[in-house]
Amino acid sequence: MAFINEHYFKLKAGYLFPEIGRRVREYASIHPEKEIIRLGIGDVTQPLSPSVIKAFHEGVEEMGHKDTFKGYGPEQGYDFLREAIALNDYQSRGVGISKDDIFVSDGAKCDTGNIQEIFGSQNKIAICDPVYPVYADTTVMSGKTGMCQANGYFDNIIYMPCNEQNGFIPELPSTRPDLIFLCFPNNPTGTVASKEVLKKWVDYALKNNCIILYDAAYEAYITDNEIPHSIYEIEGAKKVAIEFRSFSKTAGFTGTRCAFTVIPDEVVAYDVNGKAHPVKPLWMRRQTTKFNGVSYPVQKAAAAIYTEDGKKETKQIINYYLENAAIMCQNFRKFGYKVFGGINAPYVWVNTANNLSSWEYFDKLLKEANVVGTPGSGFGPSGEGYFRFSAFGERENVLKAMQRIEALKF
Amino acid sequence: MAFINEHYFKLKAGYLFPEIGRRVREYASIHPEKEIIRLGIGDVTQPLSPSVIKAFHEGVEEMGHKDTFKGYGPEQGYDFLREAIALNDYQSRGVGISKDDIFVSDGAKCDTGNIQEIFGSQNKIAICDPVYPVYADTTVMSGKTGMCQANGYFDNIIYMPCNEQNGFIPELPSTRPDLIFLCFPNNPTGTVASKEVLKKWVDYALKNNCIILYDAAYEAYITDNEIPHSIYEIEGAKKVAIEFRSFSKTAGFTGTRCAFTVIPDEVVAYDVNGKAHPVKPLWMRRQTTKFNGVSYPVQKAAAAIYTEDGKKETKQIINYYLENAAIMCQNFRKFGYKVFGGINAPYVWVNTANNLSSWEYFDKLLKEANVVGTPGSGFGPSGEGYFRFSAFGERENVLKAMQRIEALKF
Repeated sequence: MAFINEHYFKLKAGYLFPEIGRRVREYASIHPEKEIIRLGIGDVTQPLSPSVIKAFHEGVEEMGHKDTFKGYGPEQGYDFLREAIALNDYQSRGVGISKDDIFVSDGAKCDTGNIQEIFGSQNKIAICDPVYPVYADTTVMSGKTGMCQANGYFDNIIYMPCNEQNGFIPELPSTRPDLIFLCFPNNPTGTVASKEVLKKWVDYALKNNCIILYDAAYEAYITDNEIPHSIYEIEGAKKVAIEFRSFSKTAGFTGTRCAFTVIPDEVVAYDVNGKAHPVKPLWMRRQTTKFNGVSYPVQKAAAAIYTEDGKKETKQIINYYLENAAIMCQNFRKFGYKVFGGINAPYVWVNTANNLSSWEYFDKLLKEANVVGTPGSGFGPSGEGYFRFSAFGERENVLKAMQRIEALKF
Repeated sequence: MAFINEHYFKLKAGYLFPEIGRRVREYASIHPEKEIIRLGIGDVTQPLSPSVIKAFHEGVEEMGHKDTFKGYGPEQGYDFLREAIALNDYQSRGVGISKDDIFVSDGAKCDTGNIQEIFGSQNKIAICDPVYPVYADTTVMSGKTGMCQANGYFDNIIYMPCNEQNGFIPELPSTRPDLIFLCFPNNPTGTVASKEVLKKWVDYALKNNCIILYDAAYEAYITDNEIPHSIYEIEGAKKVAIEFRSFSKTAGFTGTRCAFTVIPDEVVAYDVNGKAHPVKPLWMRRQTTKFNGVSYPVQKAAAAIYTEDGKKETKQIINYYLENAAIMCQNFRKFGYKVFGGINAPYVWVNTANNLSSWEYFDKLLKEANVVGTPGSGFGPSGEGYFRFSAFGERENVLKAMQRIEALKF
């Protein structure tokens, strides 16, 4: 008799974004005449840049000729891409990460979920609250938690509330975790972590033999020179941190699919006898057994981001989104909202107006302004009363959305 | 303290294909002057067909323009591809599979591994011996087995020996499994399953509430009209079977990455109280939470396989590989080997000459003929004394390899 994985029953109804999609589709089907502006899911709107498209075409063309055709590639990615990543994202910033530390994949969402497979089910996981839902959901699915309590917290996950009082920066947990998910620039709050903040976490992990699972999917939005782009800019981090990056938000790859995970040789985890084992070979084994690498033309396209033209074009698109964020911040402040994030980050985090709950505000915004955002409570209990706007829209729509939000009646 | 998943320690050294790669690289580095012919890993050599390339380029082009740019797509794949699959691979053969049953992914290897996540760790898994290593390895990694015994079998996996006596078709197991991996046309033996054989398995699964995980990655190589392409051609299979397919071998997508998994609504698994639950929503939840869909241009390319030209071109490439297989079968028979498979399948399975072990034959073949094949024992203990040749090489190389093998001295 085939048995299901009962941990799935513990999950709360629907992953956040499908639920948003459902409500929007329902509204749109009843009001087909309404023009809905989507600032909810963090999905980009600007096309791939010319250099990326050119390389993408070249990659496709190679696949059409016998002499240049590529079959199975290395599961961890082609060297040309891994070298470009190591050089441009790390070595050029003085961070000693080499190509052998880079594992190219089809998404940071996949990697942050799949990485849990190489760690035992006895690990206690710490996550921020609010948080990108995938960390918690995949922890639940992998059987590392108990049931969901009335307050929205799962037993056996260590939640680190992030709120106005602590500036949306988590404090060190009182219960000791084994694996710690951190994400900066933060999704959903748009907060960034200073060197001092990251050092505190790296030191904590070193002292307690934890591993930090560091999601840096939005690092390209950092413009402030003092803010670290990588956790490996912190001394000692190479012993305790795995870093996740993505081309999704850096270069508009949400529909093209390419990302990477960094695991330095020094990162270790422990067996039940307390013996340390390097983590990298485990991930290599996982990837070679359960993954077949990223499409070759996609890797070619991704590598083009690191050419001189590619860098310029990418910067331009990021600036466009950052200007969107600035416009939103400015307007929400003018409308009397409390505004967080939106600088060094593509997300603007505001309190909901008039003490509405996050989903009440979602519904009001959808129905009265025809604007879609993301309810803060969808990211965890501490997100209640907040709302996330994505800066990835088109300028015209961002401006229109601001007008409509200004006109909301409470 | 971060704990590793100790189940990884149970795995035997190196996944088969990386181990082959290692030995070949080692030999090639010492003998750089030797021209090595690779008939080992089942990787294709013919380029993507013109229709596929055209659609691939069009998809890339769309990504470069604002009006046609695609961000996140549906995790389960675009409707245009799911519909083409349902229509051409199923409905046109009278099999009632609809687009909603299709989950597009980046590989059948990923899917056959990941599918285990939605099933509880108490499931007993049955696999053939010899078998594609991923089924066993991912079962081990997911904690469903005990240790590996001296005979190469893992405790708590039900092995179904396939050998000359049973024509490489597994017999119903004496211990009742919960999940049953079957693969036809078979990798590695090239065996196909008749309707009668499949009916026996479907009936067994229906009677025992098992689920059959049916790997049909090589169905495109079936030319015999009597051999089913899909397990759903068998009555009742929609209640008990999940089918995996891939464009890798069908259309040369090993480096392009696109595959799909079929889960009909009727497939159920059970909770610990014996209550039945549909499996499809669990996989949907898994995929939406841990996967972000396949690259849009790749899906466009895959859909082109189903156009009139695409079908013709694909057929042509498949015939080319099937002719390779026929040449190999004919030659190995002439050389005095026992030959299996190679008809309706791209793999030729032979006994090793002179009673060599599979790895002894591998090394002899590599060093004396400079030909790479796959040791049968790499697929399981019952594969010992056998050897797999892939028909995916270039004709010229296949012919040359046959000459060199003929010249081997024992």
